[in-house]
Amino acid sequence: MARPTVGHLDPSFVAMMDDLKDLLRSAFRTRNAMTLPISAPGSAGMEACFANLVEPGDRVVICQNGVFGGRMKENVERAGGLATIVEDPWGRAVDPQKLKEALAAAPDTKIVAFVHAETSTGALSDAETLCAIARENDCLTIVDAVTSLGGCRLEVDAWGVDAVYSGSQKCLSCTPGLSPVSFGERAMAAATSRTTRAHSWFLDVTLLSGYWDEGAKRAYHHTAPINALYGLHEALVLLEEEGVEKAWARHRRNHEALRAGLEAMGLAFVVPEAERLPQLNAVTIPDGVDDGAVRGMLLAEHGIEIGAGLGALAGKVWRIGLMGHAATQANVDLVLAALKDCIG
Amino acid sequence: MARPTVGHLDPSFVAMMDDLKDLLRSAFRTRNAMTLPISAPGSAGMEACFANLVEPGDRVVICQNGVFGGRMKENVERAGGLATIVEDPWGRAVDPQKLKEALAAAPDTKIVAFVHAETSTGALSDAETLCAIARENDCLTIVDAVTSLGGCRLEVDAWGVDAVYSGSQKCLSCTPGLSPVSFGERAMAAATSRTTRAHSWFLDVTLLSGYWDEGAKRAYHHTAPINALYGLHEALVLLEEEGVEKAWARHRRNHEALRAGLEAMGLAFVVPEAERLPQLNAVTIPDGVDDGAVRGMLLAEHGIEIGAGLGALAGKVWRIGLMGHAATQANVDLVLAALKDCIG
Repeated sequence: MARPTVGHLDPSFVAMMDDLKDLLRSAFRTRNAMTLPISAPGSAGMEACFANLVEPGDRVVICQNGVFGGRMKENVERAGGLATIVEDPWGRAVDPQKLKEALAAAPDTKIVAFVHAETSTGALSDAETLCAIARENDCLTIVDAVTSLGGCRLEVDAWGVDAVYSGSQKCLSCTPGLSPVSFGERAMAAATSRTTRAHSWFLDVTLLSGYWDEGAKRAYHHTAPINALYGLHEALVLLEEEGVEKAWARHRRNHEALRAGLEAMGLAFVVPEAERLPQLNAVTIPDGVDDGAVRGMLLAEHGIEIGAGLGALAGKVWRIGLMGHAATQANVDLVLAALKDCIG
Repeated sequence: MARPTVGHLDPSFVAMMDDLKDLLRSAFRTRNAMTLPISAPGSAGMEACFANLVEPGDRVVICQNGVFGGRMKENVERAGGLATIVEDPWGRAVDPQKLKEALAAAPDTKIVAFVHAETSTGALSDAETLCAIARENDCLTIVDAVTSLGGCRLEVDAWGVDAVYSGSQKCLSCTPGLSPVSFGERAMAAATSRTTRAHSWFLDVTLLSGYWDEGAKRAYHHTAPINALYGLHEALVLLEEEGVEKAWARHRRNHEALRAGLEAMGLAFVVPEAERLPQLNAVTIPDGVDDGAVRGMLLAEHGIEIGAGLGALAGKVWRIGLMGHAATQANVDLVLAALKDCIG
């Protein structure tokens, strides 16, 4: 990222863009042509999916089991759509049976949206099953893979995901600020056959494709964040060199080590074992322990930042990330020793 | 930007955010509380202004004299507004008399929008006069200062600009990817008293203020692009150290040197002298000279990229940037020598 900035139409940069798309396809396990990084953080990737696929009056079923389902609802409504919320408890995976029932009750539903890996709770949902149910009901799917991409199994093509977005700063270990997205053929058909224009010019995939497509004229749309894209390219090269399946296994292995250590300290996981996300470990704060004091001491004395609880879990849990480059045995040992020191 | 990434709520980062806002206020010459960098390129800053201020049915007069006025129209229409275009020739400043007439003909106009420094043509418009006309007609103003911020006089408070956006990669000499914006009290009053929600969640200033305001709870909105913001902070420190008025004078001085050299080579400026933007020098390509061949040779043999013509000026002009850190006598000498070599 510290290399000199070149022009956003420089031939060397255009070659890197093509390479970047191939690397992203490999990480997403897709052959989708429309696979690229949105020039803004994950929240903008989410907005890119909803703004392009939701037209006024469209019904969208959102399976909500944490903070980010609520943000999806905002996106649907701001695009003029009608959101139906299917709720599951915070800390649990999405229940496929509830989705089936919701779609039976609302046969006019166009899109099903859910979060694959809920960063706010550490729950991992069965995206393959949820996408199959959506497809059986002739619905498109929008999947939040912000924390899953590169950290646990994600199979965009094999599972039939129609639109997916992620973030550069989670299991890809890049700096924050970019949002990889991928749109399948059905999603692109929906985006290009809209009867109304998408609300966002900046995020309009029909315009973005004119700059990013291999076959296109590389028409100027917006100035790409050149140096940030250098960083994402390198992060994806590192993932490709390790191999994405090996990266998933590494996250799982280090999660098991962390789990053993946390449980030995008497800390209990929020999420049942079968629904647990390896890269985000949410544990209940023990009675009598001061949340803010422990997190402050971890940061000040050990240089370790762990996440506070969000939404319904605020003040009740800690969220310990074990993502990308940071998912190592050495870091597991370090955070366990530091936590022991801070809890006393 | 190569420094370690810290958390977006890390105390050290929050302190830097406050510092960054003060530096931006100094560059924009404003005391506006709502002055911050949007986490995406200039096109998203444009969208932030229109998405927050335009409600369905609102009339917006756009003074168009180049590419970016056309993009404003897209933004107005996608926000549900009604755009009235006041056209001036490409390569000329906006004519204040035409704006007066347009506002007299459409007294229900809510917003006047124009580009201060048209990057596509090199024309500089009289923002002070245009803002005064808008204010007399009780209209808000949205001003595109992508290429003017840091490069020529821009006085957000003294001129009464209501909402303004810029880019990190022009005269601030930072990497591309961030868009400094500033909203005055009248603009914030319009944004907070909307009867409909802004169509963009990511760009909603009422939500952004919860994260960026000094007095706010620093509520998580989206993950800030930490390392890119380090870069913008440093770019603004450099501008502050030089002094913004001195930076304007430096751009003017080096433009004069470039102008003398280009005219000595027989190259004619597109824009009349009084309306000329120092930091973007558009000259007509001489008859018989191959546009693409010259630009390709400049890049390949001299490592210099100059801009092609855009829109109505495609294939007819070259656009030579002289922005920020690059606006030096040494660079003027370099580009003149290289151009002589390539034109032959």
